[in-house]
Amino acid sequence: MSETLNKTTGPVDNSHSPNSYYRALSGEAAKLTSGFWAHRQAVNHKVSLKHGYAMLNKAGNIHNLKLAAGLESGNFRGINFYDETVYKWLEGLGWELGRAPDEELQALADEVISLIAAAQQPNGYLNSYYQVVEPERKWADLDFSHELYCAGHLIQAAIAFKRAVNDERLLEIACHFADHIESVFGFGKKEAACGHPEIEMALVELSRLTGEERYLHLAQFFLDQRGKKKMQGLGANGPEYHQDHVAIREADGVDGHAVRQMYLATAVADLYMETGEQALLETSQRLWEDMTRGKMYITGGIGSRYDGESFGESYELPADQCYCETCAAIGSFFWNWRMLLISGESRYADLMERLLYNGILSSPGLDGVSFFYVNPLMLRNGRYVRLSANPPEEQKSSGRPEWHKVACCPSNTMRLRASLSSYFVTSNDAGFQIHQYSNMAISFKDSQITVETEYPWDGQIKITVTESSDKPWALALRVPGWCQNFGMKINGQDANGSLQKGYVTLERIWKAGDVLEANFAMSPFLVEADPRIDSVRNCVAIQRGPIVYCLEEHDQESGVNLLDIMIDTGAEIISRRQPELLGSVVTLETTGYLSDRSTWQENNLYRPVASEIKKTSSDRKLNLIAIPYYAWGNRGLKSMRVWIPRAPE
Amino acid sequence: MSETLNKTTGPVDNSHSPNSYYRALSGEAAKLTSGFWAHRQAVNHKVSLKHGYAMLNKAGNIHNLKLAAGLESGNFRGINFYDETVYKWLEGLGWELGRAPDEELQALADEVISLIAAAQQPNGYLNSYYQVVEPERKWADLDFSHELYCAGHLIQAAIAFKRAVNDERLLEIACHFADHIESVFGFGKKEAACGHPEIEMALVELSRLTGEERYLHLAQFFLDQRGKKKMQGLGANGPEYHQDHVAIREADGVDGHAVRQMYLATAVADLYMETGEQALLETSQRLWEDMTRGKMYITGGIGSRYDGESFGESYELPADQCYCETCAAIGSFFWNWRMLLISGESRYADLMERLLYNGILSSPGLDGVSFFYVNPLMLRNGRYVRLSANPPEEQKSSGRPEWHKVACCPSNTMRLRASLSSYFVTSNDAGFQIHQYSNMAISFKDSQITVETEYPWDGQIKITVTESSDKPWALALRVPGWCQNFGMKINGQDANGSLQKGYVTLERIWKAGDVLEANFAMSPFLVEADPRIDSVRNCVAIQRGPIVYCLEEHDQESGVNLLDIMIDTGAEIISRRQPELLGSVVTLETTGYLSDRSTWQENNLYRPVASEIKKTSSDRKLNLIAIPYYAWGNRGLKSMRVWIPRAPE
Repeated sequence: MSETLNKTTGPVDNSHSPNSYYRALSGEAAKLTSGFWAHRQAVNHKVSLKHGYAMLNKAGNIHNLKLAAGLESGNFRGINFYDETVYKWLEGLGWELGRAPDEELQALADEVISLIAAAQQPNGYLNSYYQVVEPERKWADLDFSHELYCAGHLIQAAIAFKRAVNDERLLEIACHFADHIESVFGFGKKEAACGHPEIEMALVELSRLTGEERYLHLAQFFLDQRGKKKMQGLGANGPEYHQDHVAIREADGVDGHAVRQMYLATAVADLYMETGEQALLETSQRLWEDMTRGKMYITGGIGSRYDGESFGESYELPADQCYCETCAAIGSFFWNWRMLLISGESRYADLMERLLYNGILSSPGLDGVSFFYVNPLMLRNGRYVRLSANPPEEQKSSGRPEWHKVACCPSNTMRLRASLSSYFVTSNDAGFQIHQYSNMAISFKDSQITVETEYPWDGQIKITVTESSDKPWALALRVPGWCQNFGMKINGQDANGSLQKGYVTLERIWKAGDVLEANFAMSPFLVEADPRIDSVRNCVAIQRGPIVYCLEEHDQESGVNLLDIMIDTGAEIISRRQPELLGSVVTLETTGYLSDRSTWQENNLYRPVASEIKKTSSDRKLNLIAIPYYAWGNRGLKSMRVWIPRAPE
Repeated sequence: MSETLNKTTGPVDNSHSPNSYYRALSGEAAKLTSGFWAHRQAVNHKVSLKHGYAMLNKAGNIHNLKLAAGLESGNFRGINFYDETVYKWLEGLGWELGRAPDEELQALADEVISLIAAAQQPNGYLNSYYQVVEPERKWADLDFSHELYCAGHLIQAAIAFKRAVNDERLLEIACHFADHIESVFGFGKKEAACGHPEIEMALVELSRLTGEERYLHLAQFFLDQRGKKKMQGLGANGPEYHQDHVAIREADGVDGHAVRQMYLATAVADLYMETGEQALLETSQRLWEDMTRGKMYITGGIGSRYDGESFGESYELPADQCYCETCAAIGSFFWNWRMLLISGESRYADLMERLLYNGILSSPGLDGVSFFYVNPLMLRNGRYVRLSANPPEEQKSSGRPEWHKVACCPSNTMRLRASLSSYFVTSNDAGFQIHQYSNMAISFKDSQITVETEYPWDGQIKITVTESSDKPWALALRVPGWCQNFGMKINGQDANGSLQKGYVTLERIWKAGDVLEANFAMSPFLVEADPRIDSVRNCVAIQRGPIVYCLEEHDQESGVNLLDIMIDTGAEIISRRQPELLGSVVTLETTGYLSDRSTWQENNLYRPVASEIKKTSSDRKLNLIAIPYYAWGNRGLKSMRVWIPRAPE
């Protein structure tokens, strides 16, 4: 392996960006050393990635590529985008091999990379469905074919292998395919885009990696194809399903299929980073404002509608019928990362944190071999569960299915987890910036630091300088959006830093042995939602640090129906560290009431208003135990709710 | 036309039922003479049925039958169940020709009946899709083929033509097909049922009409096929989509696709009426309790989920994402009618009234040529509207589409409207019962009465006896479920009737000229929902008589966003008769507040709970104008809401 290998650039390399940008680390890696996320990376390494390989074989994705390669006979299995799942899993493998080399995982990678090479056509084309099933329909059904979408994921996998382990085998395949795509698409050639955005951001990154501007131009071309209203949509959904309802620079809000919208918005931010075109930045900001002001759940999750896996109207955010596809949350994470690099504003890192600990983390089971596709904020007592738009495969004991017919989400969690440290720290000429808190070892130029923390369970952060240059440099720490109160000390003395864009910056000549202690006061608090959100009117949610909590039936007094619970918003909330529970969590305990429903006639779902809503004397006090939302559904599926009605005064 | 023709039996003839049953009128018709419903029947006659014919030509349904008849060439258009729409429209035509003979409509009927005769195969089989497109797949795809479903609608159309105008042409076709079906299906033959229930209730009625018990046995056979969990469902939906999740006698609640569930429940009640099997009655009652206690909107509408057009869990009743398919409401109406005949309990007639004036009536536009498929209880300000699971055809000025790709709903409203008077009155040995109030002329044995009323705008009902036998007979009047206070006078003197099962019964020797005046006090009132319904927590709806009201943006102060409105639950509500508005309605005016949103930071969709929710001093008083829910969307689509947040004290 080359000594000059840039092992830590991660999925985005903006090292050539203007000075004003935060830059994805281009020196040595920021490594997660232990604790919350390192544990989850280890599960990914030991369990999830191998499970992914087994599932890709079981579901037929590998078989399909073997068909295309002429190595097996039989019928194509699954859906025309099944290659994407192989590529996203492989991308995860690439990052993971850079993070923690492993012979067994390396062998899986070698096998599948060889297979992909064998499947590729001499002209560079590569898609097992269209090679095997409908060879005459190549590039003919762009709205639904996912050919360019799959190509984008191939490119991203190739970039991971090049950056993480300097393996260029996939890159060669990907460039060959990209060159073929360039020969087919463009002005005066085929003027169309893929029904599912993805290739755009992949081509921008390929351009960053290879220095080939033509890939950037092709990405720009695809972006500019949108808004022709030519794509047919799905079912009752219009062209917004395919993000073809509006020219991107004219979009005034997020709309349509949430994953498609996120991947497109990510490409918009990416292209702005490369071209500096102001209209693209303004578009990205408009979409972001629209999403965060009316179309986002408290978990960061997005997509209110099962129908079209899509955004709803502003404030249409039902807790029970919400879709919140895992991939949409991950797409938002990618987009926010680019906006953070561009702007340096903590609100983007805040949303990344919200997504990471809630809307994304709820997908994988603690076992590492089961995944939610849909992430609702409420599950009622019910005879059946609808946690996927796609018929799930076998249900694991966690309550999550082991895989899905459309398995975009599990593989997405794998690649994100393997590359996670890339999103925690950045640098600029002045020094570096810590966006997410975890036990880490970080290097920047001549300086090295370690971070020690119990985050997300505790807001104490201890940063120790282990090596330092003799020149002054700056350390910037994000003040989490949830934090009302914080303090910082350097070597035991109060530190005076400047607070800008949500970051405290401390600049000095740091010496080995210097210790910076930050304390972000972390105690439970209640959250209320904009009153225009009907579904949670007069409710509160409980949050502690970045973690959104929920009530799960498992933890409540036996026989209590979560539909009958109200919370006493004036009561104390007690935090309890529970190392043995749900992979080690902090639970919260507070007081509520069990409604006496006997005052409501059983046969009247609706009745004339009798009187003001009052707590009746027969309502019974009871303890409520809340667990982190992300950990729900790991003890079998029972009812769950994030938003809890307030008890009347 | 035969003098002995039973013109008024309507869709259900239970004249052979036990004495304890209410019986669908078997003498002369109860005719709607003028007023609210007579006007709507006239629109159906003059406009809707002809529009239906035009649409059936435009969409290809007629063309498909011509293909099957060998009268035209070309490709099949639309979906494999397109024949059903022809049959339901034709059923409407049949009832209408009995109600109000008309040469133009008769010519349409003659043309289409001849076409259907020409399309039928010599062996009796009849389905244009399977005859033209997949002749080798007949009876091979029962889950989704809709062949038996279409056959059921053919049978119902045939019954209408026989009963209403003594035309037996369709009946001959239908019996030929039914006999063919009997040769294919049954124990030891093909043992399976249709993915969409419908044939069951049709066969029961065909048995009633023809006296052939074998049709009843075939209906029973199909009913008993359910619950094998063999049907595949649709998308992520399981076998409950096709009502195949449970053996019918073991069902403990309504589930799955709402229309399928309603048509099946109707058949269960029908079969109980014929067989007296107690388990069937108990099943029907269990399903009814489950539906009305947790899975029904205030409009009577059902189906909470777009996904699978299905019921949700109990109390999962979002106002904005609700489906409330028109056909499901009509199916519930059919089912409740049978339960009313069986039990004589007013709760079933109450629900029929709730459906009629709200969940069903909201579908057709006032213009008669536009129809909602989905009937939400809230429409937000939005750039696009999703009022159908199926891509709608051209949008009319009313806001409703002129037709739908799946046009089950418009034709359903047509057949119901043409046969409506059949559901308003019943008889038994003691006399007769008035279930729904309208201007009517009713005959029973030797007696005749007229009903005069401004219902649903006024609760005064004047009943005049115009002819009477010289023996005592009883007149029973339903006391509407919404009514808190009523009085009755006979010839100006207080009448003493007995109140049983929700009906006041007055028995005496009635004389020509006797006048019974009933007064059901009608004033606006507020309704609250079971607190377990999250989506409308702390909200109220406004009702007046049987009519559920809504706020539509059209009627409010300009610029007011319906999302910012709260209602003062203590304020007076003033009723105003508005003959020129929306086809003549009573509007309601009351007082509310416009929330001052400036106290809520724009960029915080969620925030820590600051304080108790209080009316802020900057909230502004304003008038709220409510219109009947059914009339919404007739002035172009703007925002609308049925449930209104209560202003804090």
